[in-house]
Amino acid sequence: MAPAPAFDRMALIGVGLIGGSIARAARALGSVRTIVATSRSEPTRQRIRELGLADDVADTSAAAVTGADLVIVCVPIGACGAVAREIGPHLKPGAIVSDVGSVKADVVRAMAPHIPAGVHFIPGHPVAGTEDSGPDAGFAELFINRWCILTPAKDADPSAVERLSQFWKAFGASIEIMSPEHHDLVLAVTSHVPHLIAYNIVGTAFDLRHVTESEILKYSAGGFRDFTRIAASDPTMWRDIFLHNREAVLEVLGRFNEDLSTLTRAVRNGDAETLYKVFAERRAIRRGMIQFNLDSPAPDFQQPDSKPKADPIPRPYAASGDD
Amino acid sequence: MAPAPAFDRMALIGVGLIGGSIARAARALGSVRTIVATSRSEPTRQRIRELGLADDVADTSAAAVTGADLVIVCVPIGACGAVAREIGPHLKPGAIVSDVGSVKADVVRAMAPHIPAGVHFIPGHPVAGTEDSGPDAGFAELFINRWCILTPAKDADPSAVERLSQFWKAFGASIEIMSPEHHDLVLAVTSHVPHLIAYNIVGTAFDLRHVTESEILKYSAGGFRDFTRIAASDPTMWRDIFLHNREAVLEVLGRFNEDLSTLTRAVRNGDAETLYKVFAERRAIRRGMIQFNLDSPAPDFQQPDSKPKADPIPRPYAASGDD
Repeated sequence: MAPAPAFDRMALIGVGLIGGSIARAARALGSVRTIVATSRSEPTRQRIRELGLADDVADTSAAAVTGADLVIVCVPIGACGAVAREIGPHLKPGAIVSDVGSVKADVVRAMAPHIPAGVHFIPGHPVAGTEDSGPDAGFAELFINRWCILTPAKDADPSAVERLSQFWKAFGASIEIMSPEHHDLVLAVTSHVPHLIAYNIVGTAFDLRHVTESEILKYSAGGFRDFTRIAASDPTMWRDIFLHNREAVLEVLGRFNEDLSTLTRAVRNGDAETLYKVFAERRAIRRGMIQFNLDSPAPDFQQPDSKPKADPIPRPYAASGDD
Repeated sequence: MAPAPAFDRMALIGVGLIGGSIARAARALGSVRTIVATSRSEPTRQRIRELGLADDVADTSAAAVTGADLVIVCVPIGACGAVAREIGPHLKPGAIVSDVGSVKADVVRAMAPHIPAGVHFIPGHPVAGTEDSGPDAGFAELFINRWCILTPAKDADPSAVERLSQFWKAFGASIEIMSPEHHDLVLAVTSHVPHLIAYNIVGTAFDLRHVTESEILKYSAGGFRDFTRIAASDPTMWRDIFLHNREAVLEVLGRFNEDLSTLTRAVRNGDAETLYKVFAERRAIRRGMIQFNLDSPAPDFQQPDSKPKADPIPRPYAASGDD
């Protein structure tokens, strides 16, 4: 017998890759009794209806959150503050409000002032994604064996944090709790700066004289392809990430540049010893990663035609592509 | 009926990932009548015997090439000159000598003077690899839908170039002919600099205070993982690449740094317009790549237990990991 729904009415504000995946997973698992969704654009609202992602599609965020006991804001980071301002007066006492933004400190600063007392604000970030976006891109399995980081305030209600944690765990995710500031530094290292570097090298390659676009595409299997994969994500989302996680990104970039100067000098001087030492060390890191595994029980969605877009090897750190 | 072997006796000098894959593919397809292999280390020679990769395992490179009509030098770039010096006097008139090095101009400079008149020197570079190395790492399917670049001298015998091209095409590879210098610039962009950047960012991440190794590993699905995959290749090979393709690598690195300064400035200034423009452009490049396909008939190796290590989607530019 399926467990009782954890929430009665879930409101999703914004239905892109993440919002659409939450809707599909919650529906498949019976995590909530009713799903109400909204989007600021009418074509997207129409598409949500066509895809049957929600029981009810609201025209405004204010209408969507009315009566909801779980609200998840899934809009680009830069829009979170305005959404919070709009929904604040309409939130039900005791409701949980969360988000899915890839930056936390700035989002908390923008949203928290608008969340009334008696409503539990528990910011979140499911570390999962593909290079696709929009309501059609979502799939129920997106969060399997992924991490979901929650950054509740120190005085947050532990039982509300626990309820939201269980909601994500049902999707196959593992939960980590940390401060918004620490989240932003960790993600700057593991995600934001890697993306900036990937965007950068793709641009450098295609601007070079003497090397044609067709040549770059032909020989991309030599390493370049992994960068283009990263550089394919939604530009609005990434613009907002860099606008809102500026300090941590600049700190990591500064270190990256220092290290690159050292490596460049080794290349220029033909310093065989330094090059070998550096490459051998980093290979060891990769080898360590492959062995680093996480056992997380995967949910059974029992959807015969669910799209198996997730890793073929269902391990967060197994070596394999995302697409 | 299988076609007649294209060569009578093939000598492989060095049997790592590439040499071992050539041996397996040539054996599976009957491309050569006899395979003789050698390695400078006795344990590797023993392993070649155990794996049955060759009909004959020679103790020296000189002995290996004696009587061979196809010689492929598969040692690290830095060792190519010494191998050429050793084998030069023992090469059979009319034989084809090639290599598989990831850098061409320096390798040609080191090898060409030792190749006697009457022997066809046709340098080559199969653009294929995995993060594994050594004779056990090879597999017959490694070259399917990969490019093999040949850089023959202008006065090279066209029929010898054609014979070597056919040899590689039988493995499922496509052939491109270019000058050694152009090869080195193209590979600096598509492979060498991406690897240096990947090695660099992996180091930066693990040197950061305030972020633990475990956190980097946990959240690597956010983008970092693609870099560690690249940074896992053989350190000796990569040291040699950077020692021998210095000029092209420094040129591309210079451009990379200029571009990164521009992006860093956009982050520092909160320049939303520039960030969006850059990210949207690069995403379009990636989308273009996914559509860029190459139709190459794949050979049928008919090996029931061959390791399917190649891309699940057998297209050189399909979006998918290498491991």
